[in-house]
This record gives sequence, structure tokens and C-alpha cells, in this order.
Amino acid sequence: MTVNRLIYRPLGGAGEIGMNCYVYGYGPEGRERLIVVDLGVTFGDMETTPGVDLIMPDVTWLAERADRIEGIFITHGHEDHVGAVGHLWPRLRAPIHARRFTGALAKLKLEEHGQDPNVVQIHEARPEWIEAGPFRVQFVPVAHSIPESAGLLIETHLGRIFHSGDFKLDPTPGVGDPFEPEVLAQIGREGVKVLTCDSTNVFSMHPGRSEATLAKPLHELIGSARGLVATTTFASNIARVKTLAEAGRAAGRSVCLMGRAMRKMVSVGQETGVLTGFPPVIAPEDASSVPRQNLMLIVTGTQGERRAASAQLSRGKYLGIEMKEGDTFLFSSRTIPGNERGVGRVVNAFSEMGVDVIDDHDGLYHVSGHANRPDLQQVHRLIKPEMVIPLHGEHRHLREHAKLAIEGGIAAEIVTNGMMMDLSGDAPEVTEYIEAGRIYLDGSVLIGALDGVVRDRIRMSMNGHVIITLLLDENDKPLGDPWAEMEGLPEFGKGGRVLSEMIEAELTEFLDRAGAKLLRNDEKLDDGIRRVVRQVSVEEIGKKPEVTVVVSRLSDS
Amino acid sequence: MTVNRLIYRPLGGAGEIGMNCYVYGYGPEGRERLIVVDLGVTFGDMETTPGVDLIMPDVTWLAERADRIEGIFITHGHEDHVGAVGHLWPRLRAPIHARRFTGALAKLKLEEHGQDPNVVQIHEARPEWIEAGPFRVQFVPVAHSIPESAGLLIETHLGRIFHSGDFKLDPTPGVGDPFEPEVLAQIGREGVKVLTCDSTNVFSMHPGRSEATLAKPLHELIGSARGLVATTTFASNIARVKTLAEAGRAAGRSVCLMGRAMRKMVSVGQETGVLTGFPPVIAPEDASSVPRQNLMLIVTGTQGERRAASAQLSRGKYLGIEMKEGDTFLFSSRTIPGNERGVGRVVNAFSEMGVDVIDDHDGLYHVSGHANRPDLQQVHRLIKPEMVIPLHGEHRHLREHAKLAIEGGIAAEIVTNGMMMDLSGDAPEVTEYIEAGRIYLDGSVLIGALDGVVRDRIRMSMNGHVIITLLLDENDKPLGDPWAEMEGLPEFGKGGRVLSEMIEAELTEFLDRAGAKLLRNDEKLDDGIRRVVRQVSVEEIGKKPEVTVVVSRLSDS
Repeated sequence: MTVNRLIYRPLGGAGEIGMNCYVYGYGPEGRERLIVVDLGVTFGDMETTPGVDLIMPDVTWLAERADRIEGIFITHGHEDHVGAVGHLWPRLRAPIHARRFTGALAKLKLEEHGQDPNVVQIHEARPEWIEAGPFRVQFVPVAHSIPESAGLLIETHLGRIFHSGDFKLDPTPGVGDPFEPEVLAQIGREGVKVLTCDSTNVFSMHPGRSEATLAKPLHELIGSARGLVATTTFASNIARVKTLAEAGRAAGRSVCLMGRAMRKMVSVGQETGVLTGFPPVIAPEDASSVPRQNLMLIVTGTQGERRAASAQLSRGKYLGIEMKEGDTFLFSSRTIPGNERGVGRVVNAFSEMGVDVIDDHDGLYHVSGHANRPDLQQVHRLIKPEMVIPLHGEHRHLREHAKLAIEGGIAAEIVTNGMMMDLSGDAPEVTEYIEAGRIYLDGSVLIGALDGVVRDRIRMSMNGHVIITLLLDENDKPLGDPWAEMEGLPEFGKGGRVLSEMIEAELTEFLDRAGAKLLRNDEKLDDGIRRVVRQVSVEEIGKKPEVTVVVSRLSDS
Repeated sequence: MTVNRLIYRPLGGAGEIGMNCYVYGYGPEGRERLIVVDLGVTFGDMETTPGVDLIMPDVTWLAERADRIEGIFITHGHEDHVGAVGHLWPRLRAPIHARRFTGALAKLKLEEHGQDPNVVQIHEARPEWIEAGPFRVQFVPVAHSIPESAGLLIETHLGRIFHSGDFKLDPTPGVGDPFEPEVLAQIGREGVKVLTCDSTNVFSMHPGRSEATLAKPLHELIGSARGLVATTTFASNIARVKTLAEAGRAAGRSVCLMGRAMRKMVSVGQETGVLTGFPPVIAPEDASSVPRQNLMLIVTGTQGERRAASAQLSRGKYLGIEMKEGDTFLFSSRTIPGNERGVGRVVNAFSEMGVDVIDDHDGLYHVSGHANRPDLQQVHRLIKPEMVIPLHGEHRHLREHAKLAIEGGIAAEIVTNGMMMDLSGDAPEVTEYIEAGRIYLDGSVLIGALDGVVRDRIRMSMNGHVIITLLLDENDKPLGDPWAEMEGLPEFGKGGRVLSEMIEAELTEFLDRAGAKLLRNDEKLDDGIRRVVRQVSVEEIGKKPEVTVVVSRLSDS
């Protein structure tokens, strides 16, 4: 008799906020049929990943089992859930399932990468079921900061899983699906074995507020502003873009959207029908002809990104518009930890212009898209799962969320990227562990996080780079002196001596002393040169640079 | 008749939080005698200053007028006020004035750099006056997060300036001087022309809390902890170290200080007499023999610094101690903006060990060392200056502080690094502006921020580095093929082709086509090679690397 099992393995998102990718499997051990939930990206930083454009989960484990993948389900259209579809789909090649708006974004991603957008299948939400091998899956509408976000109700013969997706409990989210407690209660009554659940805001102690609470303070703020008003929010938060645009119109201003991403999101929202009743806007090229006290801009760049509209406005003229004394700039957004310096640069640049900057300091002009701690407790109580497995969080969030569930009398398990949980029995257990890696998009190429490329870049950026070239004649004797080139190093060392000359002089001495045997041995010669360069550098500038040695032998030519 | 004037020029700290350095001058225009207030450092980051150890104000303007400097006054012992003394004193060579504890730290800095510590003169606080050319200066005790912090009352024939230094309004700061409103009120009654004032916390809306309020919650927290308790605070915040140690002792635990900086600060505090009644502590080597439920560690590393004690504990064993499930780690500190990721790494590593991490989320276990908005208003009212000039802040803080003063009926001016204010008349005005630069300590060498060294490092870390070597014979004909070495670049490009081979092949073709004239022209040959490398790289990997070209000509050898 075949024994089937139900497994869960996160490959990204369980141990970080970003690059979500979760796998569920059902079937005989080692032959489980698989479904994938989300294919997201995360973003690098100069400290750990200089030069890297995007970071994605390493899907090697999945790719090796591509023939067992029944489908890829995308919960919603944020980059950390759909952003890797274009890059990774070619390695997985399974049908992609999504609701209309999310599906439209996934299709754009595929098209950008020359893939066939028709692998995306569009579905209605619950009560529609999607058959995927041994799984039946339902998109369950939840409220979030992007339209058509969904949780997934995943049904198998060994029980049902509710995968929450990203959500907040908002009865009036403006655009997108409202929170309906009765839907979750009904799912709970039907029986849920495991709730895999968003943990982002587990440290936020108060209940979340609704998008609808923003209209009044925004209207008051914009109504009392004298000069131009510019405001930024996440491009994909169409509900907020609409809230802002309505507040601008209510204050008698012409509204203009700036930034490619924002205009794209609004147009996809309108094309797919999730966004209706959006106020009229003027084109960016017409904005500069509107008197500034009658104009409101909604722009991209909540995180201080250098090339986004907000940063460009903070540096000077952008599309003919220039901010100045008496204008107002509003961040209707939260600064993601790690981006404080970039945001600070924008704020200070505006401050120098005399622009009044208003941020989310007092929480009046922004609400989060994620469920806070009391909201999570409410969802636990509605769904009544046998077990909570937290996801979408750093380890500290997962741990806190697990503690919260246990305090509420529900079993919980911390499952991080790479772990495989067997959910079949009464007491789920970890059965296997792989190192869950990362893939970097670097320029146009995908590289592994452990390839050493980025490590070498970080070393060069910390220590500089010295290049030594040496010419040896047919008898392996130095022809001329060794030559030192430097990049990212000070020209002068202690006492004003020229560093490259000091290195060359020491190397010449080293080569004079070197015997024929050493000079004939590529590896030893290289090592010796490297050692001399580092010694001189430590002595002269207190640093050990990266060293590249190029020895050209005429005997080889 | 000679007309004297009173000038103010910040060189660091007015437009950033860090590297404080302010200059006051009195005398005939261009011949003013000068005093310097503070010589501080700030710290770099991987995004803008990879490999840089410390950042200091460019004191070239001051150094060119070194013969006019009457003295250097250090307000307190924080690195952003005293940290550059060892590096910059040799360029200024004026007597250093400080109170006892601060002076002891300044002497250590000088000794570390082989300078004579006796240039530091130790002074008592108000009512003692220090004569410095046309200036009389008083150290006015203020409360802060380090003992013996001082404001400076600066007297000239053209009026008095109160330079606030860093301060908070704390009547019970534990260690160091309490806030005494009457002292400031008295100074106000004596007449103050300009208040140059700390702006750090102008956006903190509630009145600051006292250090003394921490004792109770700390005692409760530590008393209820089961396992080992470790806590971190700034090493220089001796008052906090004492508060923590007392709370640990009250909870019946042995207390151990870990981290070189913390032990140094406590011993300087004890030697100079500012720290008395510090509870007994055990040596780090004895800590591991104390049962964990009876032990409390106070460690360095509030900002997640990789080499500090907290980070080492989060990675495993440190000095024989290992944190584990059921232990508690407390941040009695604030995360400085920009350090969130580093702190997050430490928190998540502890979370993986099962350690309960408590941060300053709810403000129970930390109070700031800076005056909040209502506190600043109180100081404005006590001092009653004719004008407020905000300092110690980014532009947004300076601007907000100036607005606050104006709302309170006091004139205010935003003066940023490099600007020179003439304070002589009734309406102070900007008279001159220099670009206020920065100096980097890079290894053991001081370099200018605009030298291009760091720019090259950032480019290498973003784009990688390709080194091309080419050998030309006596007739300037290529001898063998060009050779490409790479650092920080992926090995393979599109379709799995080896990048260095693609580059070499294209270069060989380029050289085949090149005429004798091009091959003889170093610059054009270099340019041509560079162009080919970039073209191939963009095509193959979507990146334009940094390129170093080394052409060796046998004709030169």
C-alpha cells in the first residue's frame, strides 16, 4: 500500500522579509506532486551585495523536480511575490495560476523575458476550485496594500492548509477586497490543519487601522498647504494612490502621477477592472503649466531610490517641475529598515530647498498592509488551525509569531528556508534540511550567492586592488622592472612616499634575490609577489589590498 | 580705528549628526583670533565610503590660520566631539581645554598618536573662566549620556554666546551633572546674544525622561529573567552602565563587563573621580564559572558592529560564554539610523538560539542623551538669546529647530558647515562660504574625500574589474595574445560562454585590425582596448566593468 504524505518546504521568505517562495507536496515520499506558492525577489544593498540587481531564491531543488510541479500559484502582485517569475519560470515550466490583476503583472514579467505569457491562467476567487494534481486550491480574497491579494486554501486528502499570503484586516481598504471575518470563520469551521501565516507586523502591538481613516487627515493636510504638494507612496498600492488623488481633488488641485511604475500600476488596475472611479489626472508634460498652489504630484520613490521621481525632485528639476520654499512633500509610506540613509538624503535635500517634509512619524498619513499582533490573534481564533507555521518574516518575527500562537493555545513550529516539514501526522516534524541558497541577477546574468564574485567585489571595495605585471625573458629572467598599477588606493603612503614606487622597489629587490627555481615556478612567484605587495602596503598605508599578478613569459609567446 | 567682529563658522556637525567642529573668531576682519569647539569624527558606511575607517572634518581652513588659534575646547568625551583630536591636533597645535574626564580621554587619543598629552589643560567648571585671547570661556555643566558634558559660555566684547554642547534636561542623570534650570536662567539674565544649540531630538515631541526612571523597569525585567541576562549600551554611557549594573546586583546577579571600550570607560571614570559607588564586578575570565541564572553581562555593540561583544555572542562562544534558549538579551540603547540591518543580524542570530531579545521598542529601558522638542523650548526660554543658531543635526533638524525658535519669538538662522556668520551687529549675516570638506582615515593614511580613491572602490564593487595585459615587441607588434584577468565578475556570460575568452578573442581581432600608428600610440591603444572590453561585457553580462590596461613594450625594456 502506498503511504502518501503532505510536506511543506519554504525556499524563501521564511527567515527574511522578501523573495517569497514556498513549496507544498503530496504523495509517496520522494515522489510527492508539488505546488509552488509565489516566486519573489528581494533587493540587495551595498554592504552585502554591491552591484547585484536582484536577489532570488535558489530553486535548484525545485528545478530538479520540475516534472513533479503541478502549478505555481501567485498570491499577489508585489515584487517579493511575483518578481522572479520572468527569471525563474524557464527552470520550472509549470502553469502559473493567479487572479486577474496579479496575472496581468505576471504576464508582463514573462513578456519582458521573452517567455510565453499564456502559461498564466486567470482564476476567479473562492468558491472556484483549481485542480492541481492531488491538490485543490482556492484563491481566498484578503485585504492588503495591492488589489486582489489572496490567501490560498489548499485541500488534500491529509487535510487542509490555509496559506495566508500577505494580508491586513481592513473592512474598508478602498480598492481590493475587504476583510470579511465570516469568510475566515467559515474556512475555520470546515477544518484547517495548518495555518501558514504572514508574520511581518507581529511586533506592532495595536490593531491595524483602515485605509479609509486616511482620507480626512490627508484632505486637511493638502487643503491647508500653500505651495505645491508632492506625495509619494508605493506604486503598487493603488488604493493609496486613489486615496491621495481623491484628497488632492477634494482640495481643489489638479493631480499628476509621476514615475513609470506608478503609471503602469494604475493602468493595469484600470484594464483589469480592479480600479474604478479613479479621479481624472493630468499628464506630466502639462503639470508645469498649472499654478503650484493648484497642483498635487503623486510620485514614485518612497525609499529614497536615487533614480525615482522623489529623489530627482529633491535634486532639482524633474519633468519641468522644481520644488521650492513653501512647498510640501509627504511620505505616505514607511521607510523599510536599511533604507533610512537614502530616505534621509531626500528629506535633507528638500529641507535645503525650504520644502516642508512630512513623514509617517505620527502615523496619520499611512497604514500598513500587514496584520498587526492583535489582528494575527483574531485570525488564529477565526481559522482555529491545529498548528500555526509562521512565514513572511525574519527569524525574530517567526519566533514571536510562534510564541503568540502558543500563548493562544495553538501548536506552532518555526520552519525556516530549506527545512522540510512532514505535515501528515498529528505531530508535524522536520524531516530534512537543505541549505536554501540565493541567486543573484547581476547585470543580465544569474550567479550563485556563493560563487565568490560578490565576495571579491566587497574585498576590492574595502581594500583596493593592486595589479602587478612582470615580464620574464626566454630564460625566465626579469625583463625590465615589475610594474604596479593601483585602483581604489591612496597614491601616497606614510611620509608622502609614492605607494606604487615603494611596491615596485621592493619587488625589484625581491626578484633580484629570487633564484632561478622560484622564477620558473608560476605559483611560488605569484605567492612571493603577493606577499611583498601586502607587506609594503601594510607598512605604508595600513591596508592589505587585493592583488592580481600577471606574469608574461616570452618563453610562452 | 580697528573694527572688531565676532564670527561663527561650523566645519562639521552643522548638516549632519557627527564630526562636530565649530570655530568662533573675534578681531579685525581677516585677523580674527580663533577658538575651536570640538574635533570629532563620524563613521563611514559601505554605500558611500567602503574601506574608510573614520571620517573627519577638513580643517585646511583652520590649519592655514593655526597661528591665530587661541585654544581648542572639547565639550565632552563622545567620539563625534573628541575622536579626531589625535589625527588633527598636529595640524592645529593649540592648547586643548577640557574638564577632567573629557581631558583624560583626549590625552589617551594624543598618546595613541604619539603626541604630547600635556597640551591638554584640565579645567574646573563655571564659575572658573578660561582666558583665550579676546575670549573668556566657561565650561557650564550639562546633563548628557556621558559624564562631565559641558556647554560653553563664550564671552567677547561684542556679546556672549552660549554653545550648548550635547545635552538633555535630566535632574537625576545618575552619573554626571544634573540639569539645573537656575544655572541656565542666570546665564540668560546675564545676557546671551546667540545660543548655538543641539538639534538632535527636535523631532521628539514628548519631554525627555530621566535616567532614574530606568531603575525600576530594569530591576523588574532582570528579576523575572530565568537564564543568563546580557545587555548592551554605549560604552561611554557610564551612567547607564552603572544603572544596569545596579539593577543586576539588585536582582542578585554577578555583573561582568565585556568589551574593551566599556572597561576602558569605566576605569577612566573611576580614575578621574566622576564615577563612584560602582557595584563590584567579576572579571570576564570568571564569568563562565557563575551559574547562568546568577549572571548578568554588560557588553559593547549596541549597533550590531561585527567585532563587538554583542555580535560575537550572537555568533557563538565569546570569552567562554554561550547564549542559549531561555536567556535574555537587552538593548538598552537606540539603533542609529543606517545601522538597522547590522542590529537586525544580531537580533535574528539570537532568535535562532532561542534567546529572548528585548529592544527599545516601548522605550522602557533606554532614555536619550539629547533634549527633546519641549526641552529645547524650555532652554530657549531660560537662556532668552537674541538669536538661536541650531547645530548638531542634519539639515532637516536644523531647519525644524530654527522654526521652533521663531515660533517662540526668537530670531534663528540656519548655518551649515562652511558658512561664516558675522554675529557682530544686530542682524547677523552670512559673509562667506567655503566648501566644507571631509578627510578620511583610510587604514593608516589620511585622504581627501574628493581624491577619487573611494569613488574607484565603489565603481569596482558595482561593476567588477577587468585587467588587460598586452605585450608588444620591439616593432610595436603584439607578441602573443592579449590576456584578460577579472576580479569581481561572473566567469560565464550569456549562453555559458567564458567571459574572459570572449574578451580576449575580441581584443585579438581588434589588434589584428589595428594599424601601426594606433599600436604605437599608448593613449589611443588604451582607449581602444577599454572600449572593446566594455562592449563585450555589456553584450555578455550586461555590465560595464572598470578596466585597467597594462601594455608592456619590449622597446622600453
